[in-house]
Amino acid sequence: MDVIDVGLIGAGTVGCGVIKVLSDNRDIIGKRVGLEINLKKIADIDPDRKRPVKIPKSLFTTDASELIGDRSIQIVIELVGGTTVAKDFILGSIENGKHVVTANKALLAHYGKEIFSAASTKGVDIGFEASVGGGIPIIKATKEGYVANRIISIHGIMNGTSNYILSKMTEEGREFDDVLKQAQNEGYAEADPSFDIDGIDAAHKLSILIMLSFGVFLDFEKIHVEGIRYITPLDISFADELGYAIKLLAITKSRDEGIEAGVYPALVQKGTQIADVSGAFNAIYLVGDSVGPTMLYGMGAGMMPTASAVVSDIVQIANNVKLKNSHSSLPKFYDDGESSTLISMTEIMTKYYLRFQVEDKPGVLGQITGCLGRNNISIESVIQKGRHLGGGDVPVVMMTHEAKEKDLLTALDEINNSSFVKAKSVFIRIEDL
Amino acid sequence: MDVIDVGLIGAGTVGCGVIKVLSDNRDIIGKRVGLEINLKKIADIDPDRKRPVKIPKSLFTTDASELIGDRSIQIVIELVGGTTVAKDFILGSIENGKHVVTANKALLAHYGKEIFSAASTKGVDIGFEASVGGGIPIIKATKEGYVANRIISIHGIMNGTSNYILSKMTEEGREFDDVLKQAQNEGYAEADPSFDIDGIDAAHKLSILIMLSFGVFLDFEKIHVEGIRYITPLDISFADELGYAIKLLAITKSRDEGIEAGVYPALVQKGTQIADVSGAFNAIYLVGDSVGPTMLYGMGAGMMPTASAVVSDIVQIANNVKLKNSHSSLPKFYDDGESSTLISMTEIMTKYYLRFQVEDKPGVLGQITGCLGRNNISIESVIQKGRHLGGGDVPVVMMTHEAKEKDLLTALDEINNSSFVKAKSVFIRIEDL
Repeated sequence: MDVIDVGLIGAGTVGCGVIKVLSDNRDIIGKRVGLEINLKKIADIDPDRKRPVKIPKSLFTTDASELIGDRSIQIVIELVGGTTVAKDFILGSIENGKHVVTANKALLAHYGKEIFSAASTKGVDIGFEASVGGGIPIIKATKEGYVANRIISIHGIMNGTSNYILSKMTEEGREFDDVLKQAQNEGYAEADPSFDIDGIDAAHKLSILIMLSFGVFLDFEKIHVEGIRYITPLDISFADELGYAIKLLAITKSRDEGIEAGVYPALVQKGTQIADVSGAFNAIYLVGDSVGPTMLYGMGAGMMPTASAVVSDIVQIANNVKLKNSHSSLPKFYDDGESSTLISMTEIMTKYYLRFQVEDKPGVLGQITGCLGRNNISIESVIQKGRHLGGGDVPVVMMTHEAKEKDLLTALDEINNSSFVKAKSVFIRIEDL
Repeated sequence: MDVIDVGLIGAGTVGCGVIKVLSDNRDIIGKRVGLEINLKKIADIDPDRKRPVKIPKSLFTTDASELIGDRSIQIVIELVGGTTVAKDFILGSIENGKHVVTANKALLAHYGKEIFSAASTKGVDIGFEASVGGGIPIIKATKEGYVANRIISIHGIMNGTSNYILSKMTEEGREFDDVLKQAQNEGYAEADPSFDIDGIDAAHKLSILIMLSFGVFLDFEKIHVEGIRYITPLDISFADELGYAIKLLAITKSRDEGIEAGVYPALVQKGTQIADVSGAFNAIYLVGDSVGPTMLYGMGAGMMPTASAVVSDIVQIANNVKLKNSHSSLPKFYDDGESSTLISMTEIMTKYYLRFQVEDKPGVLGQITGCLGRNNISIESVIQKGRHLGGGDVPVVMMTHEAKEKDLLTALDEINNSSFVKAKSVFIRIEDL
């Protein structure tokens, strides 16, 4: 059986998962592809840390360059994360003619073009299945499975932490801060949760799917990103009453004028596949012009699911090495419009959920609807509840028909400046799926 | 740009979809993979039939051997279906050193070993993504995406016609025959619907997923296959009351003693991803030891979704031809236990939904539970409704704990022979997902 030597940089949670899969499933991988993946060296700054798998001390080095410089190693697995040293490790490995497998979405979202271009120049491959959706084979599906399609839209639940928090808030009617604290205690959220709950992690993943779907490398900073901090149990409960769930979605749509791209909480109709994705699960709902609507669902993070994706890349590249095949996994950037093709959020058209906190007096509803009407926003339904016990103001909830976001922001500005408005009005976009 | 010549045998619905995708999306495919797929010849017994796409008459031949013998054609797309001439076309193409793309599940379920072995000998590739789940990239996911996993189980809704009929029966409380007739009128079911509603089509697809998951080529005739003809609105409504939906599932599970494999209607808990798959959609719920539970969802049939899968295979093989890569898509049969590894249905352990139609008199319930108990079957819950208006017999519904199927069949035999039983007792398996 052919043996391919690989090296691992970063023996953290996912790294240990990779070590475990390569060891536990060595036999079945060998039967399926007729080769053996030999983990020859592991670089980590702390070899002595307690780990969930047994690793021979002799494999460890604290110096990644030892591994990158090892001529026998053909594939380098980068699981350090972040955009600093990881970038050097990957570019150094490419420079030395090594193939690379990585789960590093932040790095690819920011420096993907540079990295893929370097790999293309050196004729090596980059596997990045684990960068989006953990164990869900969405990279392969988008790049190869749907290759015959024009991609029309993608709606992804791509951050397990946010989905877990929103699910808990929905099921238990609890406040965001409260659920976040619990999630942190239970290990579902980081001590610094910002990457997850402010939508940045999902935006990194979205930017990778956009590369594959539209052949364009977006300026990451230009992608519209909102998190879930402003979502309240009150809005979740009104949405529920209207037949919707609130999910943090990473969204891209192909329009004649360009590409829409953004991460934000949105209302999705209950009973749809995407609305039913609960807890820490991920799902990517993709519509192609031939294939129609599809969805891939699974665990988007964690030691073993992510390792499943990393090892699938290792096996594919190792198989190509064995067969002396040319690489074929690098995305092509064929749309050089770059950020010019990104449609500004103020130009998007969608439906909106609106909640106004207003004085409970005659004429207020008329003033709100009048202002919306003047700005070309028509209303589909209204919920106005009776007087709030112990308070002089009440919530008024509306769902609009499709409207331009610019018009909505203008109207909300005007409404927020009215004396009858007691708190900043809330708007959440609605996605029809 | 490199041009790869391909030939199509069978310009029916899916064939026309392939022609349309290759033409409509020629530009985007070219940008993504840097090659052009040139449809050089089409073999069909009826070139003059009215078709949904415009095809130059000059492309047609009525003689498939003309295409199979054309030295310039590197990939043959077989979309004739069936297990007779299609087999000759495919083996002939392989013999002539051509790669093959096919959607033919029946052929692969029956003759897959022979065909893959012939392809391996000649060093050509077989693409069969379209054979399971239409546009859903489940073949690629199972073979490559989950290559690092031991597959634990698969539960597939893989026949759109059956799922459509069961969904309609559930939503509208109508009888099977009635809904089938409507489905036939609307084009959701064939004039001879047996392949679909008797589970055979789903079993063909299951047998392909088993090849990829377990490396074993099962004797197709030994797979347990039930259809949906015996499902009644009464059982659907009792299941609903118990919190379950009834779905036709293609199921395989890996056990220490071997592989379970079968197609049958089963109760699945409402609110799970698989229970929510309605209408003509397909979904494959797969659990791997590393990746955990995953699901792929989409349109499992139809002109364009199936064409999406066929063209993805064409592109992948064409790309390998262009890069002069060795083929890598053929499944390996590494478990030669063959049918010996298939666990007999009488040996499976599962929970059951039971419905007895019995005389409404004292002691009957006790006799039933007594008989079940003597056969090691314990009961989780019972629904016994009041006297049926205008009749002397009533339905008694039970859900059991896990029991051995052999024991259940013994108990049912005894119960069915009792004088208080007025109709053959119904049992439907329950799947925990």
